[in-house]
Amino acid sequence: MKAIDIANLLNGKLEGNPDLEISNVGKIETAGRNEISFISNPRYNKFYITTNAGALIISNDFVIKNPRNDITIIRVEDSYLSFLKLLELFYNSKTDDVIGISENCIIGENPELGENIYIGDFVKIGDGCFIGDSTKIHSNCTLSNKICIGKNCTFFPNVVVYDNCIIGDNVTIHSGSVVGCDGFGNARQKDGSYKKIPQIGIVVIEDNVEIGSNCSIDRATIGETKICKGVKLDNQIQVAHNVYIGENTAIAAQVGIAGSTKIGKRCMIGGQSGLVGHITICDDVIIGASVGVSKSITKSGMYSGYRSKPHKEDLKEQVLIKQIEKLKDQINKLSRSE
Amino acid sequence: MKAIDIANLLNGKLEGNPDLEISNVGKIETAGRNEISFISNPRYNKFYITTNAGALIISNDFVIKNPRNDITIIRVEDSYLSFLKLLELFYNSKTDDVIGISENCIIGENPELGENIYIGDFVKIGDGCFIGDSTKIHSNCTLSNKICIGKNCTFFPNVVVYDNCIIGDNVTIHSGSVVGCDGFGNARQKDGSYKKIPQIGIVVIEDNVEIGSNCSIDRATIGETKICKGVKLDNQIQVAHNVYIGENTAIAAQVGIAGSTKIGKRCMIGGQSGLVGHITICDDVIIGASVGVSKSITKSGMYSGYRSKPHKEDLKEQVLIKQIEKLKDQINKLSRSE
Amino acid sequence: MKAIDIANLLNGKLEGNPDLEISNVGKIETAGRNEISFISNPRYNKFYITTNAGALIISNDFVIKNPRNDITIIRVEDSYLSFLKLLELFYNSKTDDVIGISENCIIGENPELGENIYIGDFVKIGDGCFIGDSTKIHSNCTLSNKICIGKNCTFFPNVVVYDNCIIGDNVTIHSGSVVGCDGFGNARQKDGSYKKIPQIGIVVIEDNVEIGSNCSIDRATIGETKICKGVKLDNQIQVAHNVYIGENTAIAAQVGIAGSTKIGKRCMIGGQSGLVGHITICDDVIIGASVGVSKSITKSGMYSGYRSKPHKEDLKEQVLIKQIEKLKDQINKLSRSE
Repeated sequence: MKAIDIANLLNGKLEGNPDLEISNVGKIETAGRNEISFISNPRYNKFYITTNAGALIISNDFVIKNPRNDITIIRVEDSYLSFLKLLELFYNSKTDDVIGISENCIIGENPELGENIYIGDFVKIGDGCFIGDSTKIHSNCTLSNKICIGKNCTFFPNVVVYDNCIIGDNVTIHSGSVVGCDGFGNARQKDGSYKKIPQIGIVVIEDNVEIGSNCSIDRATIGETKICKGVKLDNQIQVAHNVYIGENTAIAAQVGIAGSTKIGKRCMIGGQSGLVGHITICDDVIIGASVGVSKSITKSGMYSGYRSKPHKEDLKEQVLIKQIEKLKDQINKLSRSE
Repeated sequence: MKAIDIANLLNGKLEGNPDLEISNVGKIETAGRNEISFISNPRYNKFYITTNAGALIISNDFVIKNPRNDITIIRVEDSYLSFLKLLELFYNSKTDDVIGISENCIIGENPELGENIYIGDFVKIGDGCFIGDSTKIHSNCTLSNKICIGKNCTFFPNVVVYDNCIIGDNVTIHSGSVVGCDGFGNARQKDGSYKKIPQIGIVVIEDNVEIGSNCSIDRATIGETKICKGVKLDNQIQVAHNVYIGENTAIAAQVGIAGSTKIGKRCMIGGQSGLVGHITICDDVIIGASVGVSKSITKSGMYSGYRSKPHKEDLKEQVLIKQIEKLKDQINKLSRSE
Repeated sequence: MKAIDIANLLNGKLEGNPDLEISNVGKIETAGRNEISFISNPRYNKFYITTNAGALIISNDFVIKNPRNDITIIRVEDSYLSFLKLLELFYNSKTDDVIGISENCIIGENPELGENIYIGDFVKIGDGCFIGDSTKIHSNCTLSNKICIGKNCTFFPNVVVYDNCIIGDNVTIHSGSVVGCDGFGNARQKDGSYKKIPQIGIVVIEDNVEIGSNCSIDRATIGETKICKGVKLDNQIQVAHNVYIGENTAIAAQVGIAGSTKIGKRCMIGGQSGLVGHITICDDVIIGASVGVSKSITKSGMYSGYRSKPHKEDLKEQVLIKQIEKLKDQINKLSRSE
């Protein structure tokens, strides 16, 4: 593909060699002569001087101090979004579409299977499952009984879904994730031992959800654990029984959400944060990384700290702790002067 | 099932329609006319006004201010425990019992297999394994060599157990959990590289243990990593080599326990907490969520904080930090008045 | 094996019965008459009095106050390293070498397979994979397409590797780990929903790396996520896209490393710590357990705290917080005395 073709595709303005052959996209630090890269974050401006990329996507307002005539420039309105478009272009040209049902899979009784589906080797599908058109179930997955999966889903190898769960369209689940395992419900007996509380609810995952690798999404005790439309979960996330995650909320890796907690729409939760059970987080809340959320949050905004608080309060507290020593000195001085 | 039958089953007192047909249990917020729900936690009292449940289990001392004649009431001593009984009833009527050995599994040499066992598709069982009566090994599990598993166990799909581990009766392990992987033992060499310390011990899991999904239970370096009778582990828990977890201790999701640490009986550990290695936690300790336990605990009670301390001290410290600003003001005033 | 043979093997000096038969290694607390144990950490000196071990490895400078004539002693320069040698000896005598390709695995087109490899039951290997000599892929693993794996690797059951990843020699990956899953890249759209950013990079794992169970190593967005030579990862570790981990760095369980962060050589990171994205940690840094690292670290040394700081500062801050109450008292006294 020529640089000028890419410029046209992105509605960009080319400066340099329109005929430069571009074979791939690359990171600005490591891209080579036939690769195209981009600058979006100002922290990467410095790489303009050193990059070996043959072409660069930059924003219309990017000011070049020392122009290099060995780089072909494509100017666009938003260099990041334009680069994403390119990524997709090169990605689609690389993925190969698999279709068909392996001879080495087991499918239970009364399945309803859509068109153009893929079911890989050593997949076990229980009785009464529904699988929508163009859905791909890769090798070594297990879907138990009476599971309903929509269209265009991709389950990577080694995903497990327990009985009765319901999954929408365009859902991607990465390897090692488990959907519908039992919630952690145990009633303590007088002798100190526990009696299991049966977990008879299900998990409902709506359309356009992506779930990373090695996540655990517990089924509800009764009713549903629900992951709403457009939610994005990173790897190793724990979602306990009866949790509700609102539309388009994004959650980073290793977050844990305890039972019955309800998270609103468009929230963003940083890695390793934990939410206790039975609380409610309103819409549009941003929670930092490694934050412990022990109370409901009723006002949108940014929260941080070992015990979550509004980000400004948290910053103030950090400053105050650093001042204790100075206070000590002042007090000692005052005491002496007395 | 009629409401009166449920009342009799629970030794409860019925108020309302004894002939109401009950087809399922439901959450008070979402239950319908033919479902029965319950109120136990006072925070849910308000739902008495709004629920659509046909019947409710409540405690003998629950005071109804504005009686509704469209709800059939069953009064019992402990509404929560009674509801659990019902849950089990409806759960048992739903589970279907699988039995038999799949033609698509591989079993190694000299197995000892009990009666009424289930071994699912694509299960690999190594040489010299013992599997007790009525135990179920679901699809895509791997049991390596010389593993001993008791009666009435359930291993959900994709569980892995490494060589020589010993598992008792009535043990449930959820999908993606790994029992007996190598402990993290590496001896640093003079050139900065590491030499692996062979992990030749095993894991012993006693009776009535439940392990959630995606847990890792490391084998001992030498000797045993031990999970005692009645322990309940939630999802994504890390148990390092040579850890000992005492009877009837319950541990919430994403907790990590470092090597050789010993935890007593009847402890409860909140989600995401971490325990360093080589410490001892005595019996009946309650550790909050996201607590870092860096020292042994020798007195039962409740502990919390980023660095675990008795819960009261932790609360006090939180209050003190909030007072620094006031102290600053006082000191400034004193300094000026001097 | 006789005690004298072990003494010779370790270049040690025997005191006691040279003909004592040693059948295994054991922990000092639980070892029996025909087992050999060791004392290295002074905290274990007390067990000299109580151990039932038939033989003990101790250091040349270990002073025995009350000699026991029922224990055979082998004195060496470094008792710990000598014990590790023994561990390996007994470990190697126990492991059985598997070789061969199961009839119950599926291998795609154009494989390049080395000599003496093992491919277990229900393993799925995609098209165009290369597997080096003496590498073992245990049951229920899935290797997708165009994966390159070196010599002498061991993949325990249920490991998944996505397309195009490159793995060196002598690499061990434990069960449930996922290499090459998509990084968490999502571009927010104006309506609050997310558009997936294709992850077209790969993961490169160099020689002599060990990865614990249930880890997630994301592929790069573009370019490589790289785990350098000799790195040791414990269980349940999250490595995000485009992370770089330098040679001989060791990372304990449940650590999370966010995208594009670069970690130097010979670092040690404690359990449950988290590193935000786009930072750089220099060589020879030690990070404690449960530390939140939110800024680059440019000086080697030890760091700790909820928000990582040099360990000394962290200790000082802890002391200061404890002094607030005393300061309050002093201020009150000063105010009154005014």
